[in-house]
Amino acid sequence: MKSKLSFTLSQIAAQCNAEVLGEGSTLISGIGTIAGATQGEITFLANTLYRDSLKHTRASAVILSAEDASFSPSPCLISKNPYATYARAAQMLFPAEATPIGVHPSAVIAQDVVLSENVSIGPHVVIESGAQIGRGVVIDSGTYIGRDTVIGANSRLYSGVRLYHETHIGERAIIHSGVVIGSDGFGMAWDKGGWIKIPQIGRVVIGHDVEIGANTTIDRGAIENTVIEDGVKLDNQIQIAHNCHIGANTVIAGCTGVSGSTTIGKNCRIGGGVGIVGHLNICDGVTVTGFTMITKSITEPGIYSSGMPGVQHKNWMETLVHLRHLSDWIKRIKSLEKVLKKEE
Amino acid sequence: MKSKLSFTLSQIAAQCNAEVLGEGSTLISGIGTIAGATQGEITFLANTLYRDSLKHTRASAVILSAEDASFSPSPCLISKNPYATYARAAQMLFPAEATPIGVHPSAVIAQDVVLSENVSIGPHVVIESGAQIGRGVVIDSGTYIGRDTVIGANSRLYSGVRLYHETHIGERAIIHSGVVIGSDGFGMAWDKGGWIKIPQIGRVVIGHDVEIGANTTIDRGAIENTVIEDGVKLDNQIQIAHNCHIGANTVIAGCTGVSGSTTIGKNCRIGGGVGIVGHLNICDGVTVTGFTMITKSITEPGIYSSGMPGVQHKNWMETLVHLRHLSDWIKRIKSLEKVLKKEE
Amino acid sequence: MKSKLSFTLSQIAAQCNAEVLGEGSTLISGIGTIAGATQGEITFLANTLYRDSLKHTRASAVILSAEDASFSPSPCLISKNPYATYARAAQMLFPAEATPIGVHPSAVIAQDVVLSENVSIGPHVVIESGAQIGRGVVIDSGTYIGRDTVIGANSRLYSGVRLYHETHIGERAIIHSGVVIGSDGFGMAWDKGGWIKIPQIGRVVIGHDVEIGANTTIDRGAIENTVIEDGVKLDNQIQIAHNCHIGANTVIAGCTGVSGSTTIGKNCRIGGGVGIVGHLNICDGVTVTGFTMITKSITEPGIYSSGMPGVQHKNWMETLVHLRHLSDWIKRIKSLEKVLKKEE
Repeated sequence: MKSKLSFTLSQIAAQCNAEVLGEGSTLISGIGTIAGATQGEITFLANTLYRDSLKHTRASAVILSAEDASFSPSPCLISKNPYATYARAAQMLFPAEATPIGVHPSAVIAQDVVLSENVSIGPHVVIESGAQIGRGVVIDSGTYIGRDTVIGANSRLYSGVRLYHETHIGERAIIHSGVVIGSDGFGMAWDKGGWIKIPQIGRVVIGHDVEIGANTTIDRGAIENTVIEDGVKLDNQIQIAHNCHIGANTVIAGCTGVSGSTTIGKNCRIGGGVGIVGHLNICDGVTVTGFTMITKSITEPGIYSSGMPGVQHKNWMETLVHLRHLSDWIKRIKSLEKVLKKEE
Repeated sequence: MKSKLSFTLSQIAAQCNAEVLGEGSTLISGIGTIAGATQGEITFLANTLYRDSLKHTRASAVILSAEDASFSPSPCLISKNPYATYARAAQMLFPAEATPIGVHPSAVIAQDVVLSENVSIGPHVVIESGAQIGRGVVIDSGTYIGRDTVIGANSRLYSGVRLYHETHIGERAIIHSGVVIGSDGFGMAWDKGGWIKIPQIGRVVIGHDVEIGANTTIDRGAIENTVIEDGVKLDNQIQIAHNCHIGANTVIAGCTGVSGSTTIGKNCRIGGGVGIVGHLNICDGVTVTGFTMITKSITEPGIYSSGMPGVQHKNWMETLVHLRHLSDWIKRIKSLEKVLKKEE
Repeated sequence: MKSKLSFTLSQIAAQCNAEVLGEGSTLISGIGTIAGATQGEITFLANTLYRDSLKHTRASAVILSAEDASFSPSPCLISKNPYATYARAAQMLFPAEATPIGVHPSAVIAQDVVLSENVSIGPHVVIESGAQIGRGVVIDSGTYIGRDTVIGANSRLYSGVRLYHETHIGERAIIHSGVVIGSDGFGMAWDKGGWIKIPQIGRVVIGHDVEIGANTTIDRGAIENTVIEDGVKLDNQIQIAHNCHIGANTVIAGCTGVSGSTTIGKNCRIGGGVGIVGHLNICDGVTVTGFTMITKSITEPGIYSSGMPGVQHKNWMETLVHLRHLSDWIKRIKSLEKVLKKEE
């Protein structure tokens, strides 16, 4: 992928925590994969297993670790963390696009909203009374900011985000299209043959440096708040129920649902399609692999799983039959044991 | 959580189906959890298991059952259904906010739309020809109401709801942001190496007192209608396919999907992350626990499950190996039985 | 369902690849199910198993195969593929509604956008600089088209679609409300106690004749593109991660998630609630049944499964206990074998 910018390898090294091996004046004006990179692009090797594939790369430079450097046919950026160096180089070559400062005339903004300097408010945005928009915030078209909601400096809300009233977003947030934050939690009481709605009077409070993927939903608290700490990264189509608390730097992959009042610790890594039952405590440093259901609190860091890998349909049908009759087989084992015991 | 309103305990008792035990003039101006409530707030005990935790509450009053009353350090509201009484007290203290009556000038409303009295139509709302908006309906910003769609009295549609043409919504609906109702069902026919779209000509018909969570989708019928009966409560990110029929007062938790033409009875409770295959009949009064897949019709009320609880990864890997070789183990049991039979 | 149009059976036969059996002048002005059709409506029998149900139909005509024709009480349209003929007849009777040509004055369209002839742009649409909108494209209200995005001729985007910059949509696409295409993939590198965002610099490229269901999300590529080939049909609430490649005519049912960099072949049929791990290759012609997790590449066409059917809760609890002790039972089988071996 070609950038509109270009830098020498030395310039990139200086800003990305890496050292040049080879010609530092090599001009870099794009990023590519090992197989797909073309002349002028830089690529990276994050996994030493694939170092043989470097042989055929047409990249003009490679980001890699010192141990793998001899496998590169091109000048290198040597880094202790090639993946992070690649991230930084990509940020340099592909910076966030500047958005025009100012408020589009079609935006509807309540009189008392606090707009800090350098905000960019797109067409058809609506901002309700009492909201506070921090310095350098970008709000794309059609986004809705509810009453008394606060958005920290340098956050970006893409088109069509919906923040209900009293939501608090920290600084440098990135919130993608279709995200809904602060909608009512799922709370009702059964009484005399019908459901009574329980007003959801808590809020959603989100820390700094949080990214939230497209169409993810985060419900407001029932009484107390739903809390997302600093540095949390949520993928697309995640559902966070009321009163959850997600610890700092935890990452959650797409299509995962977390039920109400569950606490997830810091630095956890939750896979995609996971379901976590309500009212649990997951400690710091837990990894949950994809498609797992967590039904109990977890007190030990480690990896937890229950995803069932797909196999050929007829084999799976066979396994299901066996599972259905597991009790019978166990009885037959016990009978065998009894017979043998008698014989002894 | 402090309210802007306050009531005496006696006033709350009178409206919420409860009796005062202790000082009826106690002033209540907020709601809190047992652990988090502060002076002036009321809390509740819905589960008698936790009654010991009342000891340390700083709440000014507690909603609970007669049996638990002696455990409260504060004045009480005695109720046969403390959770429902809490719901009613919360509605009293935190009523829905009044929205300004009228139509925002940026809304685009077809000439022939019927707007009843006391409607509130927010900025950038679009209402197509032939739609009918009932008395007291609130439609927040950026919501889309398709051609000939009908919305019953006192319903509230939050910002960014999309209702396709000919949808029918009952009275007192609450529909959260990002909900899509009436989109085309997933129907196509394979012919000569390509897919032909099957026009989806049914509608979505929704009863009274239905709440629908953020980013939930309900497809229109292929030929006949998709139907959601009175009192159904749907959580966030649920997918209801074409021609489903959901019975009255059934509740469905987040991230659940119901495939086409399935009927779910009344008073069912469907957990989160559940998948229900198409063309099934689920009878009244069925509970499905989280992460279960329902593949057959259910004719008996009761609880149904197939969610696999997560365990430590290495234990799960072991279980998977055993499952893969279940046929072999069963053969070995049969061999043992044969040997023993011969011996006898 | 009554149409505003009507045709004779002969007219329908001529356009829908079928032959009339019986009175060709029979007037058809609607479509119904076998059980629900009323006078003037046509119905269809796609599955020969249900041919006895034709006996009681009140439909004025039936689409079916030659073998089933004798079971129809009404005039017939004989087709080798009755389901496809039904699809075509429905398209004839219920054509897509004409939308008014032109650009609504509330739409905000950058100066340099290329609008081809006969486009229909609804209220509050936003189209950014450099976008190209093909001939006959319909863009409903509140939809967002990012910078340099291209939309092929005769595509329809329903209300509230969000296309990020540089997305490419082919001809005749149907994209439903709430769809987000081109949002950032989930990419970050861990460095010194925090996450660094990896700019997502690839695009989403979508072929011709693709339909995408409500609230589905498709992320842009990290470096190279996310690709959806011609004729792919995606249901609601699907998540396609960055750098996936979905082959022509593959269909995916609702609530399925595909992790990053996975390639799915042509003519695959992926069920609902499926999860597919990243970096896999699924070959052409694979069927995956609902609720299956795919963890390995698939090189043979066929059906793959791992969905666990729900059973009564107490039976499932029993199965879970057995599963937890599977290692013990296997040990006991081995002990039995040892004892018997000694005895021999």
